[in-house]
Amino acid sequence: MNKEDLSPAAFIGVRGDNIISFGSGEPDLPPPEEVYKILPHYKDFKYGTIQGMEYLRSALARQYPKSTQDSFIITNGASEALDLTLRVISSKESILPKKVLITKPYYYSYPRIIDFAGMEPVYLKTNDGQIDLDDFSSKVDDCRAIIINSPSNPTGRVESIHTLKEIEKQTIDRGIYVLSDEVYKDLIYVRENYLIQGHHVVTINSFSKTYAMCGFRVGYLWSLDNKLVQDVIAMKTHTSMNTNILGQEMAFEATKVPRKFIDDQLKIWQERRDLLYNGLHDMGFDLWNPEGAFYMLPKVENPADFVWDMFTKYDLITYMGDWFGAPGRVRFSYALDTQKIEIGLSRIHEYLKSF
Amino acid sequence: MNKEDLSPAAFIGVRGDNIISFGSGEPDLPPPEEVYKILPHYKDFKYGTIQGMEYLRSALARQYPKSTQDSFIITNGASEALDLTLRVISSKESILPKKVLITKPYYYSYPRIIDFAGMEPVYLKTNDGQIDLDDFSSKVDDCRAIIINSPSNPTGRVESIHTLKEIEKQTIDRGIYVLSDEVYKDLIYVRENYLIQGHHVVTINSFSKTYAMCGFRVGYLWSLDNKLVQDVIAMKTHTSMNTNILGQEMAFEATKVPRKFIDDQLKIWQERRDLLYNGLHDMGFDLWNPEGAFYMLPKVENPADFVWDMFTKYDLITYMGDWFGAPGRVRFSYALDTQKIEIGLSRIHEYLKSF
Repeated sequence: MNKEDLSPAAFIGVRGDNIISFGSGEPDLPPPEEVYKILPHYKDFKYGTIQGMEYLRSALARQYPKSTQDSFIITNGASEALDLTLRVISSKESILPKKVLITKPYYYSYPRIIDFAGMEPVYLKTNDGQIDLDDFSSKVDDCRAIIINSPSNPTGRVESIHTLKEIEKQTIDRGIYVLSDEVYKDLIYVRENYLIQGHHVVTINSFSKTYAMCGFRVGYLWSLDNKLVQDVIAMKTHTSMNTNILGQEMAFEATKVPRKFIDDQLKIWQERRDLLYNGLHDMGFDLWNPEGAFYMLPKVENPADFVWDMFTKYDLITYMGDWFGAPGRVRFSYALDTQKIEIGLSRIHEYLKSF
Repeated sequence: MNKEDLSPAAFIGVRGDNIISFGSGEPDLPPPEEVYKILPHYKDFKYGTIQGMEYLRSALARQYPKSTQDSFIITNGASEALDLTLRVISSKESILPKKVLITKPYYYSYPRIIDFAGMEPVYLKTNDGQIDLDDFSSKVDDCRAIIINSPSNPTGRVESIHTLKEIEKQTIDRGIYVLSDEVYKDLIYVRENYLIQGHHVVTINSFSKTYAMCGFRVGYLWSLDNKLVQDVIAMKTHTSMNTNILGQEMAFEATKVPRKFIDDQLKIWQERRDLLYNGLHDMGFDLWNPEGAFYMLPKVENPADFVWDMFTKYDLITYMGDWFGAPGRVRFSYALDTQKIEIGLSRIHEYLKSF
């Protein structure tokens, strides 16, 4: 790897005994045991329905208001749910321009999948990582959709309920879709999740973060717009067919896991958050107080040097804020145990001392 | 379901004790036992590399000439490999128009994914299900890619080696991509598979048909065009990330299964082919002699009535030729055991007698 080749993709799968990774956004703790218990006796192998297993969709319907299994599509992770939804929205007859509003900083895939779908990203101003409602109001009318990601990757910030309700209200009658990427909804430290609702809302979620099942690639979308659901199914029929049937069975087992699992995980994340936040703060980093997910986005004087030097000289992975539309910052994921966070902090301390 | 709602998607997942299905193109026999043997002790859950597991790609590299693991991408079935490749080809700078040549009859997803990728299908004439080379020569220069599917779904026909070599030759220096969908390459009754080769070739394959693993959705593409491979990886990074890691492990086990498994399967398919072909032929159906895959495409006077009546009155599923660009025909998949084929044939016999 050269300094110029630094990218999230280049780091995926990079592992080593001495490497401390604040890079990839994937839980290090394993999924609940229940997820594996079906494996020894598993024997199915045939195509499943494109929309996803009925009993998995029924289990999800019990978690979302006004829903039936028809309101869900099981996808290859939240990524595919977003990609297909954007492609369908792009192909619709509409008087609205092919533009999609996203916050800046953003999850790095958003501008790319918007572009792949033949649309154009419009960037929404944030203040300390949270949506600027005036900027939202001035830009949303010119867009076909908005993507919300609260809690946010990479900022770790959670939008206020007031902001979410305003977005809900200002989009509902204008045919503007709200794509609410809630993959971190079970990792909020400051309040309960607020579920944006309406016929124009497509909620995207996944088993990856809550149940530590990233590699199995099981996500889903929830929408009360039946036409949109049918259009996405029609597309998925040809672009990837059913989501891996065994992954879906494992996800179904995850839906039966008691709430205590999520509560216990949240405590672990909070402890890590406090450790990393205090550590970085004490070293003088300027950063936002993390409210959800497992990311921090401190300001760093020269992010490219920091990321490169920490990786090549200190075996420590971090991601450039640039990749997320946040120049002058570096993203830390704290999906690693407290012992490793402490080692990581001490390596950063050493690095800073070297100047 | 109404007669107007008939579609392949509507039939997917439709099962019942009394239903005889000549519909879906999925093997009924189970995968090799080896595929399941890893399950009891399986414990991984993390993201894999986007390109796919290294040892799976290395195993594939031993099956393809001039290859390394870098020449492969593991995908969510052959469908995703085709979809991503078309999207990448569509987004490339090129003086060639956004047109893709496909045979008619065609696999029903081809026109759709070409359209989804922002391109236009151009239909290539076939004679008795095989490519008309004159028509090919007159149309190919105006296209950015051609999709070959030999053995073909839905015709069951295999292209001659002469034809494949001509296509290889006429496209190689013009920047025209050949997408060779070879998911049935291990199910050829008349000769060995001929592997189209060249820097401009993208071979698409899957574990679904050969190893009866449809539901696990593990496919791949092989290409010696490193730029194209990198472009597809860059897209997959954002549209679906890694292919299900457990499915990939199972696919890796499949690569270790002795060749005898495939040979034994081929014998079973041949027996079924003979039974169905002779049965339909004896009842007076006009159909091509099947050379590969597990499909037949007989002429039927009124396909919509036939498919509807056989489903609603005789619990027997067949697919309309119309869905595959073959009006006046009905597609039979013979992915079911000989006893069921016999029951199916007798139900068709009964239906014909009723006139």
